[in-house]
Amino acid sequence: MPLMRSWVESANAPDSPFPLNNLPYGVFSTGDEDPRCGVAIGDRILDCRAAEDLGLLDFGTGRLFDVPFWNEVMEEGPELWERLRNTLTGLLSEAGGARATVEPILVAQADAEMHLPFLVSEYTDFYAGRHHATNVGTMFRGAENALPPNWLHIPIGYNGRASSIVVSGTDVRRPWGQLKGPDDAAPRFAPCARFDLELEMGAIVGQSSDGPVTVKEADAMIFGYVLLNDWSARDIQAWEYQPLGPFQAKATATTISPWIVTREALDPFRTNTPAREKELLPHLRDAGPMLYDIDLEVTLAPEGRPATTLARTNYSVMYYSSAQQLAHHTTSGCPMTCGDLLGSGTISGPEKHQRGSLLELSWGGKEPITLDSGETRSFLEDGDTLTLKASARGDGYTIGFGDCTGKILPALTDPFAR
Amino acid sequence: MPLMRSWVESANAPDSPFPLNNLPYGVFSTGDEDPRCGVAIGDRILDCRAAEDLGLLDFGTGRLFDVPFWNEVMEEGPELWERLRNTLTGLLSEAGGARATVEPILVAQADAEMHLPFLVSEYTDFYAGRHHATNVGTMFRGAENALPPNWLHIPIGYNGRASSIVVSGTDVRRPWGQLKGPDDAAPRFAPCARFDLELEMGAIVGQSSDGPVTVKEADAMIFGYVLLNDWSARDIQAWEYQPLGPFQAKATATTISPWIVTREALDPFRTNTPAREKELLPHLRDAGPMLYDIDLEVTLAPEGRPATTLARTNYSVMYYSSAQQLAHHTTSGCPMTCGDLLGSGTISGPEKHQRGSLLELSWGGKEPITLDSGETRSFLEDGDTLTLKASARGDGYTIGFGDCTGKILPALTDPFAR
Repeated sequence: MPLMRSWVESANAPDSPFPLNNLPYGVFSTGDEDPRCGVAIGDRILDCRAAEDLGLLDFGTGRLFDVPFWNEVMEEGPELWERLRNTLTGLLSEAGGARATVEPILVAQADAEMHLPFLVSEYTDFYAGRHHATNVGTMFRGAENALPPNWLHIPIGYNGRASSIVVSGTDVRRPWGQLKGPDDAAPRFAPCARFDLELEMGAIVGQSSDGPVTVKEADAMIFGYVLLNDWSARDIQAWEYQPLGPFQAKATATTISPWIVTREALDPFRTNTPAREKELLPHLRDAGPMLYDIDLEVTLAPEGRPATTLARTNYSVMYYSSAQQLAHHTTSGCPMTCGDLLGSGTISGPEKHQRGSLLELSWGGKEPITLDSGETRSFLEDGDTLTLKASARGDGYTIGFGDCTGKILPALTDPFAR
Repeated sequence: MPLMRSWVESANAPDSPFPLNNLPYGVFSTGDEDPRCGVAIGDRILDCRAAEDLGLLDFGTGRLFDVPFWNEVMEEGPELWERLRNTLTGLLSEAGGARATVEPILVAQADAEMHLPFLVSEYTDFYAGRHHATNVGTMFRGAENALPPNWLHIPIGYNGRASSIVVSGTDVRRPWGQLKGPDDAAPRFAPCARFDLELEMGAIVGQSSDGPVTVKEADAMIFGYVLLNDWSARDIQAWEYQPLGPFQAKATATTISPWIVTREALDPFRTNTPAREKELLPHLRDAGPMLYDIDLEVTLAPEGRPATTLARTNYSVMYYSSAQQLAHHTTSGCPMTCGDLLGSGTISGPEKHQRGSLLELSWGGKEPITLDSGETRSFLEDGDTLTLKASARGDGYTIGFGDCTGKILPALTDPFAR
């Protein structure tokens, strides 16, 4: 599909992240006004509450945009999702004739502050990148036991903490935690010294379920995708994670990009999962191409310095799709809820410059990386700003996600001071 | 403190679970009416919405009981919690003179259906019983590695699935899952064959936090306690839990008792945690007695047969209190939310008849237990009804929780059939 032209001229540039083909959903505010739902188009945002006030978004459901989150739209289901997208396309299309009505309710992105685009019901993080799992497994358990025996049969995941999800641009405070290094006689309570990022995609579950679903059904339940940085305290994790998994090491913050890129916008970029080393059981088998060809990049900017690209990779290297992860998530009868967020797992490619965490890039701190400024990094330092970027390249257009960024603040001097 | 007498005569019997000293909070409905908040007193329930309509529960906060959950009361904070309890005590006290006004808004518990008493924000389950951890560790990793190295230093926990929480009386469907026995060449997808219970207490977080809190502050954030049965699919767990912890094995259902017993009601029963084998780091040290002397019992009734007592134990055997668990939960800066639920971990005493799971009672199925009917059990069978009971014995009165019960339904024939 080629570029669809909009009367918003900035949307028609080949490198605009928000052409008419995209139409991602966010929540924004300007000045002192309340946050409200919006749709990105070029360098503008269509104010959905204002559009609903004008009667432009009436689907016979009652008001959908009185609230500053997209959950009400999600709950209406895929038929409404399609009608909404078609209506928005009509309103913003060069051919559509709605410019005079719609132009007054556009807001400049430069004037807008972005907020979390949806209420996160529960958050699950997976471990579904084979190169990442192999790298981490090799460091923690040795090359012979790198991949756990179950890894090629189920998408391994753990429940995370929904309360820790923050929107891009939120500062992230270096956490305290209980640590015990290999040479320490006893554990101690101290600021994390091995704070890290993880480059991931997040899939947003838009429909609830109350029993096992197939991979095909799971794919249809996904409303859209965001970028996701799973901030990770490696020293806390190493001490706490056996036997029940990561807990406080992953609970400080998880940053997501501000725009939900819908499944529909990503449809032209679908790709297959890699060849299977072991055949999956029938209920987890691929039911079509459910990964996406999305280029990914991570940059690190020390305080007051320009950014260095740490890694470039692509979402299509994952071993399991979000649809497979969601299907697995329901096998026990686990009820899934509209607003659940599924982290893909760290997206590392096979090459060193494709690794999506500092743990992998610096090989556990043994091989510090050098930034363009000449400084080195094993893990994150205070003042560092990390940014994840994503784009899918179409025929004369780009699907962007908006940056997923966060700056590291120093640990509190006394974490219990009030 | 002796029995406080109520004009509701049934509340004054020494073995009534709901004397005036208790006043637990639940959500109930009768006939076709909407669920609403209520307070148990003897064999009756005080209808809080009706009491608010009569102006008996006016604290200058706006309406608290227009909603069928206790989160609005929790969010108001400890000062309101105390005022509400004092007011309820006055309304129901033999000496209070409010009988003529209040008696018409009492409902018989026998006529009421109970619902979840609060909206569960997020659910965390701990592993804080030393006897349970030692038993399970011995079975899974051998006696020499029974307790993980971190176990005596932090309360080990993992995030569970809030959507899986159900109220007592809800049937529990045997789950499907991916399994691989030690003698299986490959994993398979099959109904769980080792379905189990776990006897726990649940602590309800009544106040939000946005940074590390002390153990003393954590104790003050706890609104109350319920009984909790963490249904566990042992065969699914064994295959999935390495390296990131339990996931689908614990996601089918978690049953809680219908009444929130407040921290105030349990105050006379506070006890200290056991002697420490290794001194805790300062931020996790006990700040007073924060466990409770609560007798616990589990019974199993096969379909159509009387119940057999499987185990009797006491909450005071735990190594970590809920306040210590909550304090640990916040160390990373993890935001806690009003309505969070913390499972204590399985409460097993040192003796065999004090073990809080069939995994321990039947030693992984190697020593099936015999029921009063002569039948044996290694794990749960279809039609079994499991019931947890709890009581704290005061001076002439009993603090009860209401039963925490659930019946096992057979697995679906085809989990994907619609």
